[in-house]
This record gives sequence, structure tokens and C-alpha cells, in this order.
Amino acid sequence: MKKLMKKCSKLRAVYWELDQLHLLDQRLLPNKHHTLILKTATEVAQAIKDMVVRGAPAIGITAAYGVVLAAKAAYKNDPNNWQTIIQTDIETLAKARPTAVNLVWALQRMQTKITNNSVAILLEEAQAIQQEDIDANHRMGELGAALLPENCRVLTHCNAGALATGGYGTALGVIRSAYAAGKISEVYADETRPWLQGTRLTAWELLQDNIPVTLLADSAAANLMKQQRIDWIIVGADRITANGDVANKIGTYSLAVLARQHNIKFMVVAPTSTIDMNLSSGDQITIEQRPSEEILTINNLAIAPKGAKAWNPSFDVTPAALVDVIVTEQAVIEPNAISSFRKN
Amino acid sequence: MKKLMKKCSKLRAVYWELDQLHLLDQRLLPNKHHTLILKTATEVAQAIKDMVVRGAPAIGITAAYGVVLAAKAAYKNDPNNWQTIIQTDIETLAKARPTAVNLVWALQRMQTKITNNSVAILLEEAQAIQQEDIDANHRMGELGAALLPENCRVLTHCNAGALATGGYGTALGVIRSAYAAGKISEVYADETRPWLQGTRLTAWELLQDNIPVTLLADSAAANLMKQQRIDWIIVGADRITANGDVANKIGTYSLAVLARQHNIKFMVVAPTSTIDMNLSSGDQITIEQRPSEEILTINNLAIAPKGAKAWNPSFDVTPAALVDVIVTEQAVIEPNAISSFRKN
Repeated sequence: MKKLMKKCSKLRAVYWELDQLHLLDQRLLPNKHHTLILKTATEVAQAIKDMVVRGAPAIGITAAYGVVLAAKAAYKNDPNNWQTIIQTDIETLAKARPTAVNLVWALQRMQTKITNNSVAILLEEAQAIQQEDIDANHRMGELGAALLPENCRVLTHCNAGALATGGYGTALGVIRSAYAAGKISEVYADETRPWLQGTRLTAWELLQDNIPVTLLADSAAANLMKQQRIDWIIVGADRITANGDVANKIGTYSLAVLARQHNIKFMVVAPTSTIDMNLSSGDQITIEQRPSEEILTINNLAIAPKGAKAWNPSFDVTPAALVDVIVTEQAVIEPNAISSFRKN
Repeated sequence: MKKLMKKCSKLRAVYWELDQLHLLDQRLLPNKHHTLILKTATEVAQAIKDMVVRGAPAIGITAAYGVVLAAKAAYKNDPNNWQTIIQTDIETLAKARPTAVNLVWALQRMQTKITNNSVAILLEEAQAIQQEDIDANHRMGELGAALLPENCRVLTHCNAGALATGGYGTALGVIRSAYAAGKISEVYADETRPWLQGTRLTAWELLQDNIPVTLLADSAAANLMKQQRIDWIIVGADRITANGDVANKIGTYSLAVLARQHNIKFMVVAPTSTIDMNLSSGDQITIEQRPSEEILTINNLAIAPKGAKAWNPSFDVTPAALVDVIVTEQAVIEPNAISSFRKN
């Protein structure tokens, strides 16, 4: 029973309650637990842009609820034309962040239900997207955990957890499942500059589930590998292209190169909604550039001198050749088998 | 003339003036420029430990002045036994930080002058250590700059600049000299977590000399290399062992592995005082573990949740095989030639 509890994190960063969209404000974690209630699709797009909510699957789910908010408002104003009216809102949502494909995927899925002329059906669809994501995470958790040896020491990057998804998590879902199965002896988490998702979010949600975690500066990961203290690196993904290339949080590519040099296994955990068969390789992925201020300031205070510039890509692309396995809710696949997997 | 000015940075983090030791408090840069006046060797040891001053050569120079302060006090109290009395202070200074060998080297050099029974001679020696370091940096600057191609794009890590040395800098000395010679088109600096030496110190001192600099998160360096935007990586060193292994700021090893994978040249710049022929390889170097708080807090505010642990080694070791050249004030040498170089 204790084991079961451990793997049943109920943490939800996004939820629909009392006919309202609630977002846990991830910018304030772990020090403040503040939930925002969003009322319009424009507010939702801004919240995605401002990283109130982040993580590819969570962004998709949030955008789906954004369509519900848009539909409710439009239906109230003009029950005959609401389906046309909300297209502008859907475009705004689609543009909120460019790299995660789950955003576009969720909006396309919502689009297919708009013809039903029912806001209730849209809400059902958004909730289905979230529930399916949670279920998928649990399946990925089991599939990924099965790949790990006993006494496994893992390293993760950024936050691919309950906070980044409908719930439970992708990379952290695997870690949760494997920990519950008694297979994990150490969890290391990169702090993940500049936004510190590792320190602020991953450490917080793992400790909520009583999973001990050790943080490190991103640049120290190579040293940990050199000391043979890591068996698997487990990360999420924001977009996977047809050839198996993986876009994920900046620093992922660095870890993948280092992992290969140190004979450490590299696992990417992502739902099939993350696979983008429209792009043949990672070179075609639009990489979001975030504001320089994320590097030059901390808590709105300057840490850099005036005049310093910053280069702040939010993601990088890891070539398929550096990834050992991609774990989806349907199967464990080798990166170069992505396109045949999707054809089936 | 303009070129000459550019390369003549007069910035001094450590200096002796009006018979007092002055240290620019590097913990407060770049926002506050505050100079501490230290009166005792114990204060000096604490300042080194607390990173008021940091950087291997600057630590050595500061400790040498610490011996002068110890000698002055001891001579005043007991002119017949001061040479014996100050040994305790010298031990305290030697233990302030474990990884940089320049600290021990400077203290040994001061030790050889103690027999002269003259505090004035000790002060002269400390000042000679500093002046020789500045001169050495200028020579390294010329030697290192000569290795770079035209329009060179460089990446540096941590701060191996005027602030880390007697003045001018090792890695930044090379960058200053090469920039003055018109050979550098881009300078990138890793922010260098957790202490942010890149953001706070390197960017500041380069901008003081009107050298433009672009900061990036440490984990983004691999991406910059993948995009073929870096030609040379140039770093300092805290200790170089007989086989050419290099201890330097955490993250250096990561860069060296990544540089090799991306066919980028890797240069270490350090005075001969950094070479420790007593250690046959980097495995024997004591790596300082810094407090977890450097990872878990920012400006004394918690960023991690309660219960999170941190692993915070301050340095790592880069194997000689990953270093292309070591630039000292005497010569440009290949890492595996260190021991024959030192025998000459």
C-alpha cells in the first residue's frame, strides 16, 4: 500500500474546477503555492508565454482548456457564429510558445470537436486530453521503469514531472514508478538554469512524494558521470521529429553527448503527442529564444553588469543517434524506428 | 595607442597601499564596488575561504600579503621570536582553500624570506610575487593570442581575469591581448554556476575594457559548439599535475569533453606556479566541496524546497588528453610535455 501511495502523486498543476481553469503558478514555486484562475483564452496564452505553466504536455492541456474558455465567451455573445469567432483565440493560443508540438496537437484535437456545436463537448475533450495524458504517463512510468536495473542511479534535467504534464510526469513518472518498485538508489537533478526548474520544481515534487533528491549545478553533471555515479539519464521532450531527433530543455544535448562519452544510457520519455511527423529532422524545429533577462537578472535584480548581452535559447536538439530509447505510452522504441512506429 | 590602452587593464583586486592590504570584495560585484582593508592573517584566511578574493593566482598573492600582516603583528609583540610565532598563521592561510596550488607555492616562497629577519623584505617579496604574476600574465597573453586565428570566436568559463590574478588575467589576459590585436570577433562567457563568476566578474571586467561579451547558461555551451560558433575555449587553472591534468572551476571538464566532440581547440592558461610536480595525476588533487547553500539559495533566499540536498564540488579535473595546449609565461606546451618542461 505504501508503495502504491508513493507512485500515485495527485499533484495537478492544471485543473478545471467549478467551471473555471486553475493554474498553479509555477513561477513562484517552491516558496509560494498560488493558484491563478484564468477567465479568457488571451489570459491563457499569456500564462503559457510567461511560464505560469510550462512543460510540453501541460502546455497542450492548458491550451485545450483555453479553447473551452474562448468557446464559452463566444457562445454567450453569438451562439450562431461562436465556432468562427474563436479561431482568432485558437491562433493566439497556438503562438504562445513555438517549440513544444503538444500545443498544436491539442488545439488540432479541440478543432475536430468544434463542429459539434457544443461547449460541453469541448470541455469533455479538454478533460479527456488531460486524463489520457495522466494515463499515458502511468504507462510510460511502467515501461520506462522496466528498463532500469536494480539500484539504479538516475539523473534528470529540467522538470518533466506532474507539473509539466496532466499529472504524474514523463521522466519523473518513470522515476516515480521505478522508485516505487524499489529500483532506484539515487536521484540527481540538474538545477537547470536559467529558470531553475530542477531546483524549484523537480526537487519540490519529488520531495512531495518522499523521493530523496540531490541537486547539482548543470555543469557538474559531467563530473558526476566521470565518477561513475550515474547509470541512466532520463529526460522529457518538447518535440520529437520523424528521424528521432529530440528537442528538449537547453542542456539536454550537452547531457546526451556527455552520456555517450561515459557509456551512460540516455532515455527520453514522452507521449506520442510529442512526435511531429511533419518535420523530418530536428534542424527544422523552431527553437524559442527567451528574454536575456532570464540570464542577466535574478528576482528582477541585475546580476550582470550593464552592457552585457546574453544568448538564451530555451531548448536544444539532441540527435537521434545519442538517444538510447524513447519511451512512449504505446511502446519503448529506438529513435531511428520512430517513423515506422508511427506508420503502424 | 588605443590598442595599447585596451590591453592595459589596471584593474587590481588585491593591492598593498598605505601599509595596508586592500581586497576588492568580489562577492558584491558587479553591483557594489567595496574594498575591504584586512588587518590580520586570520582575516585574510577567512576572506580567502569566503571568496572575497578568488582565483588561484590571486589567492596566492593575497596569502603572501597575509604573511606580511602576520609578521608585522608578531614582530611588534616579540621581535626575537616572530619568525616562529607566525608559523601558525601560515598554516591557517595554507588551509584556507585546498585546490589551488598557488596558495601553497606563494607561502613556500614567503617562507624562504623569513630567515632574513625583516618584515620589509617580506613585503617586498609579496609585492614581487604580485608584480611577477602581472608580468607573467602579459607574457601568457601574447603567447596565447599568437595561437588564435583571425576572427576568432572564443568561449571562457568562470573568471580567470584581472580579478583572479595579480592583474590582467590568464585566460582573460589571452583574450585581452588577442582582442587588442584585432583577432577576436566574439567573446562568450559561461555564467558559471553556482557562484556566477562569468556573469558577475568576467562580464564586468571585460566591459571595463570595452570588450563586448555575451553570457550564456553553462548548459547552453554545447549547443553553441554544435552550431559551430566557437573556435577556441580558453580557461585558467587551479592546479596542473605532472602528467598535464588540469583542475579548474567545475564545468571545465564538461567543456573539454564537448570541445573534443565538436573539434574545438581547448587552451589552458596558467603561470608555472600552478604546476604541481608533487602530484603525478589529477586523481590526487583534493577537490573542495563548497556549501550546499550555494546551490540551494540565492542572495540568502531559499530557491530549493526544504529537504533538498545538493552536491557542490567547486572544481573538476580535465585529463591532459583533452587539453590542446597549456600556455605558461615561459612557453606554450603540450600537456603531456609538462614534466619534461619542468625538468629543464
